[in-house]
Amino acid sequence: MMDRLKQIGEFGLIERISKGCLVRPERVIRGIGDDAAAVTIAGNEVLLLTTDFLVEGVHFLRRAVSGIDLGYKALAVNLSDIAAMGGIAREALASIAIPEDCGIDFIEDVYRGMKALAAEYDVNIIGGDTTGARSDLVISVTVTGRVKREVMLCRDGARVGDIICLTGYPGESAAGLHLIINRVGADTDVSDHLLHRHRRPRPHLLEGRWLAGMDGVHAAIDVSDGLASDLGHVIRQSGVGARMDASRLPVSNPLKAFCQHLGLDPLDYVLDGGEDYILICTVSPETISALSAGFEKKFSHPLYQIGEITASDHIDLVDERGETRMISPRGWNHFRRG
Amino acid sequence: MMDRLKQIGEFGLIERISKGCLVRPERVIRGIGDDAAAVTIAGNEVLLLTTDFLVEGVHFLRRAVSGIDLGYKALAVNLSDIAAMGGIAREALASIAIPEDCGIDFIEDVYRGMKALAAEYDVNIIGGDTTGARSDLVISVTVTGRVKREVMLCRDGARVGDIICLTGYPGESAAGLHLIINRVGADTDVSDHLLHRHRRPRPHLLEGRWLAGMDGVHAAIDVSDGLASDLGHVIRQSGVGARMDASRLPVSNPLKAFCQHLGLDPLDYVLDGGEDYILICTVSPETISALSAGFEKKFSHPLYQIGEITASDHIDLVDERGETRMISPRGWNHFRRG
Repeated sequence: MMDRLKQIGEFGLIERISKGCLVRPERVIRGIGDDAAAVTIAGNEVLLLTTDFLVEGVHFLRRAVSGIDLGYKALAVNLSDIAAMGGIAREALASIAIPEDCGIDFIEDVYRGMKALAAEYDVNIIGGDTTGARSDLVISVTVTGRVKREVMLCRDGARVGDIICLTGYPGESAAGLHLIINRVGADTDVSDHLLHRHRRPRPHLLEGRWLAGMDGVHAAIDVSDGLASDLGHVIRQSGVGARMDASRLPVSNPLKAFCQHLGLDPLDYVLDGGEDYILICTVSPETISALSAGFEKKFSHPLYQIGEITASDHIDLVDERGETRMISPRGWNHFRRG
Repeated sequence: MMDRLKQIGEFGLIERISKGCLVRPERVIRGIGDDAAAVTIAGNEVLLLTTDFLVEGVHFLRRAVSGIDLGYKALAVNLSDIAAMGGIAREALASIAIPEDCGIDFIEDVYRGMKALAAEYDVNIIGGDTTGARSDLVISVTVTGRVKREVMLCRDGARVGDIICLTGYPGESAAGLHLIINRVGADTDVSDHLLHRHRRPRPHLLEGRWLAGMDGVHAAIDVSDGLASDLGHVIRQSGVGARMDASRLPVSNPLKAFCQHLGLDPLDYVLDGGEDYILICTVSPETISALSAGFEKKFSHPLYQIGEITASDHIDLVDERGETRMISPRGWNHFRRG
């Protein structure tokens, strides 16, 4: 039976179960299929809603993670969804199912990690559910956000000719995960940096909010599954294609050092890494110069321009030799890897 | 370590972790500790938020439950929280962590059960998260609701002299659970009824909404842990006490038949049953007659008056012989029973 689930994958399952979910569609601006759901509350005010599971043995190993990092990340991934819609995060509900062998100190640390991040972004933790579990710790966080309808960023807004941009470096989180899984020794500064990027991904709420307020930003998504996979969502939902230039993909110095040390190709990490929680956005070519300059002034680092939206229906990658190949995103499938 | 968690219990844990959760308290009307959290959205409009876990091995056994019933109940318990605040339910987020040995048909049934109930109460299912799990199926549902601030019902509004009322029969769900656990044979109509009440508890959204619109309704809560335990929350949070008359506690005919057949005391089920998802409310003595008549006309069955709010700090039960004893609620503790 599970074989069928593996075959159809997470997105196949979502497609099946999402039929008949909207009985009052007139209240819904975005349902299943964007970073967050969006409903009207009053006038042009939109309520954003997003939720994520962290399941022991699937998303984390309890012995390999601190409670504080786990709590931080459980909230961060949800805040990142609000960021990708250009919203302000408001409230969080944090639920936890606690197995017999899990100590109260660990649980308190989970909430400590969550509360520290929540405080940073003015988010109230206003509820949740606590219960027992047989063997695996499960955390479920739901976050609400607010945004004005006219500035809300969605996945389906990309237009042919738009410049594809990144608000930060992709691939570092996956490199950090590689270090954890393989217990690889590496240069201390480099490994510390990559581990930190994996354990404490900063949600790009300020960046998302800033981009939403600017003219010419047409679409956005956060990088949770991987750059190629998440850009794939944007082009599918926008009915467009994309071309990325390998030479323009930003590779951070720590990722370069990590890949050199281990004889790995940085491009694999940049394209398929996942869990970076940076934002991809697509920007009209008319406004990109001013926007890019404004972003750099505001955030003290560049808005990385990595390619263009095209009229095709797939993603092309132009490599260093000028040769074009179609890339097929190796999207994260929790049923395949779990 | 877990021993400490068992010792402090669910409410002890909640007390510990809820410190420092509100960084912007001015936005929050109700945080952790009521049926649903409540935040202002615009003017006197309040957004209600509630979330509940259903964890395999703690809340249900997969081999003993149908997917449809499980999905129905996962949503129903959340709708009941909105009902207890006097709200209208609006949106649901439904997340599911699926173990390897769980078939796609079961998962589709879970969503079928949820969608059927959602459609009945005009609730849109607008998102969620689907992921794998190692061994146990976990469902997390979050529901939003709306209510005007001036009519919202809370746990802390009970006043000395108020009449304590129930919107339905308590104890039937626990009797249904008893039948499932002990595989007891019983009269078919009776057992069918009790099983149905356990598997498909109807959220009292219409009753809660109606009560919220009436003068003199001061406090409400839904019966999830058990009548004694949930009334205990109301008196603690309102700083009052309560007296219940055993002779006025409503015992349904099916529960009577069940208890007679098995030689059990109906009072145990009525006081400590749990999972009935009826509402307890407290009503001013000045308005109770008109309210009670109006309720019966609207819902075709009585609003059961079971006792009064007192100036003590505990619950007294006056038994059939006129003797008073203090009852200590045996509240559901997921860490104790899990």
